[in-house]
Amino acid sequence: MRMVDLIEKKRDGKELTTEEIQFIIKGYTDGSIPDYQMSALTMAVYFQGMTERERADLTLAMAESGDQIDLSKIEGIKVDKHSTGGVGDTTTLVLGPLVASVGVPVAKMSGRGLGHTGGTIDKLESVPGFHAEIDNQEFIDLVNKNKIAVIAQSGNLTPADKKLYALRDVTATVDSIPLIASSIMSKKIAAGADCIVLDVKTGAGAFMKTLEDSRELARAMVRIGNNVGRKTMAVISDMSQPLGLAIGNALEVKEAIDTLKGEGPEDLTELCLTLGSHIVLLAKKANSLTEARQMLEKAIEDCSALESLKRFLSSQGGDASVVDDPSKLPQAKYTFELEAKEDGFVSEIVADEVGTAAMLLGAGRTTKESSIDLAVGLVLRKKIGDHVKKGESLVTIHSNFENINEIKEKLYVNIKITPEIMNPPKLIHEVITE
Amino acid sequence: MRMVDLIEKKRDGKELTTEEIQFIIKGYTDGSIPDYQMSALTMAVYFQGMTERERADLTLAMAESGDQIDLSKIEGIKVDKHSTGGVGDTTTLVLGPLVASVGVPVAKMSGRGLGHTGGTIDKLESVPGFHAEIDNQEFIDLVNKNKIAVIAQSGNLTPADKKLYALRDVTATVDSIPLIASSIMSKKIAAGADCIVLDVKTGAGAFMKTLEDSRELARAMVRIGNNVGRKTMAVISDMSQPLGLAIGNALEVKEAIDTLKGEGPEDLTELCLTLGSHIVLLAKKANSLTEARQMLEKAIEDCSALESLKRFLSSQGGDASVVDDPSKLPQAKYTFELEAKEDGFVSEIVADEVGTAAMLLGAGRTTKESSIDLAVGLVLRKKIGDHVKKGESLVTIHSNFENINEIKEKLYVNIKITPEIMNPPKLIHEVITE
Repeated sequence: MRMVDLIEKKRDGKELTTEEIQFIIKGYTDGSIPDYQMSALTMAVYFQGMTERERADLTLAMAESGDQIDLSKIEGIKVDKHSTGGVGDTTTLVLGPLVASVGVPVAKMSGRGLGHTGGTIDKLESVPGFHAEIDNQEFIDLVNKNKIAVIAQSGNLTPADKKLYALRDVTATVDSIPLIASSIMSKKIAAGADCIVLDVKTGAGAFMKTLEDSRELARAMVRIGNNVGRKTMAVISDMSQPLGLAIGNALEVKEAIDTLKGEGPEDLTELCLTLGSHIVLLAKKANSLTEARQMLEKAIEDCSALESLKRFLSSQGGDASVVDDPSKLPQAKYTFELEAKEDGFVSEIVADEVGTAAMLLGAGRTTKESSIDLAVGLVLRKKIGDHVKKGESLVTIHSNFENINEIKEKLYVNIKITPEIMNPPKLIHEVITE
Repeated sequence: MRMVDLIEKKRDGKELTTEEIQFIIKGYTDGSIPDYQMSALTMAVYFQGMTERERADLTLAMAESGDQIDLSKIEGIKVDKHSTGGVGDTTTLVLGPLVASVGVPVAKMSGRGLGHTGGTIDKLESVPGFHAEIDNQEFIDLVNKNKIAVIAQSGNLTPADKKLYALRDVTATVDSIPLIASSIMSKKIAAGADCIVLDVKTGAGAFMKTLEDSRELARAMVRIGNNVGRKTMAVISDMSQPLGLAIGNALEVKEAIDTLKGEGPEDLTELCLTLGSHIVLLAKKANSLTEARQMLEKAIEDCSALESLKRFLSSQGGDASVVDDPSKLPQAKYTFELEAKEDGFVSEIVADEVGTAAMLLGAGRTTKESSIDLAVGLVLRKKIGDHVKKGESLVTIHSNFENINEIKEKLYVNIKITPEIMNPPKLIHEVITE
């Protein structure tokens, strides 16, 4: 088999066989296929696409390119959730304890990542003492005992995907649905879950800006998952503005606590109940979505979700008393209010730019080496559709420095107010199961 | 300027600016743009094409990437001829002395190359003593004196094209008209001619198999040439069967001598007169194609073309007496006749395969290091449309070894005979001037 022939085959719109895809991924991982051939192939894929069969084969080949996590020692059906990313997405922090409290095992491997805020582990580290550097045995024991544990990503997971993603990033081949879908799914599959629930964001603040593109990506991932034997479904949720109100590490932990108390923002609560219901159903802990949702609502009401969070935090060294007294979380030195300059209705909150404002405060990393300020960030006081009076606060800014003119300027530009009545955007656009 | 943005621009079907194309070629030549970005770009070009302006810019950027030959010290309008390659193409050997004999300066830089036979210099080296390793000054002096000289390619001509071609070869991006056309034209432009006559082959034995593709390539090259200020035209000529009769180095030299004597094969003679007339016209040595053709016919008739050949050969150390006595050229030990197995008409001569048969005899190189047997090769006795009787010779095989069963077998398979009357293929398909 020669790589040049396989590039030509894909270039000409033909379907690569399972063996050919395995040859490509194996060769690329071990270095026998050079970057310059791989980038020509990915550009050909950009133009010619991949069939469902090819996508499934590519996903499996990448999942098998490195270590694969074995979760078989954990009792019950393991359901993993993945979000395609957005601004202020606190769902993971809420969902884990929530579904664990009704008996769904949550075995979460997580990273730190670059972005407007830290990753799930960074956020959790706002809780004094919490750590995710546990070994595999402890991880499995904790999930069996508490139904929830989080472990820091380690080992050599999907090296083919890592190498390929870095290449796509510099060769303008990121925007390819088959490649995006295979990349995400290969990591989920290597991470060992039985079922996968996808939260595909759509709108200005999301990777996929249009509903059409989001739907295509969701379908592609759902089909890959189901084709490789992992029951998969997707919810397409709104990211035309940030989700919830908090953007920042400790601030999002507090928001998650509020939500688990039944006092969280409406959109975040609703999205968590929607995603959670699907997780509970896939884990066979309920017989219908309605039943699943009722179980979750009850878990919030009777505080079992909150208890689940406390157990989870203290089992991994965290001070669970933050749940009852969130003022024990890191606090910024200063808070400032961003006062509305006019009366009207909020018409737009440019998620990306608001996220960047949080990053400028120190909430996120720009490079792998940069450190994060867990205390700082933003809390929105208004969302799209809300009425606002001149002088009322649009955002509370939590900062460790005083000169925040640049940040205020950015926020004023990116939170728009109009005299006309605005409807808030729809939160759940679609549910994709096949 | 970032290469990844330029790849994306081309990927999305937008036009690259002159500065962007210069940035790409400069960066690729000096190594600051890596192969993996260049191959992604060429694959994007494969799908999105290039505008006429982009093609001209690419050609110039590649021509300027290394040394450029200065022919300004040669008197008169320098016209270069380029053929896109085929089997048994003896036109260069005939055309040079032919147009030189009517006063057109022929300053030919040539290589050795891989293929069914050697390159022009290999062929000329069949003439005892001939050598093309001359310096630039001698080259220019000889052209001014004799109107013709051939110099072996040296120096660093179009390094960008060399590097890019090698990359395209292993990334399935050879078959792209803008890239093929720019590659050929960049070499011609760096070689310094004022005008360019292109012989674009079409048919089974050519790089372009269909008339449509050949026309597209011809037009692309003619437009590039004219857009960068070199008057350029193209003749699309038939390569559904080998051109002329001889395939081999010394055998083609003999065929060229015959043709300059007016005793050559009809198709080779006609193609040389056609291409030659255009060269003479572009060099402003005649006022019309008809006048140009008459001049060339006269040069053959009155032996001035033959004298031009003799002068050329002896000026570069060659034994010009081979012209009067071609038996002084290298002779193979054995000759064998390929006898027809049945009566009928020749319906097909698969040029590529017949060329490969000549290579198997030792007439061509398979790698840069392999040596060439100048004496061996094939002389066709019949061409498409010819009637043949059982037992008559189809081909004379000139070989330095006795066991030629494999070669005979290959020739029998690839020279087809049919009972129906066959018309010979049209030789000159089209003339492209814009």
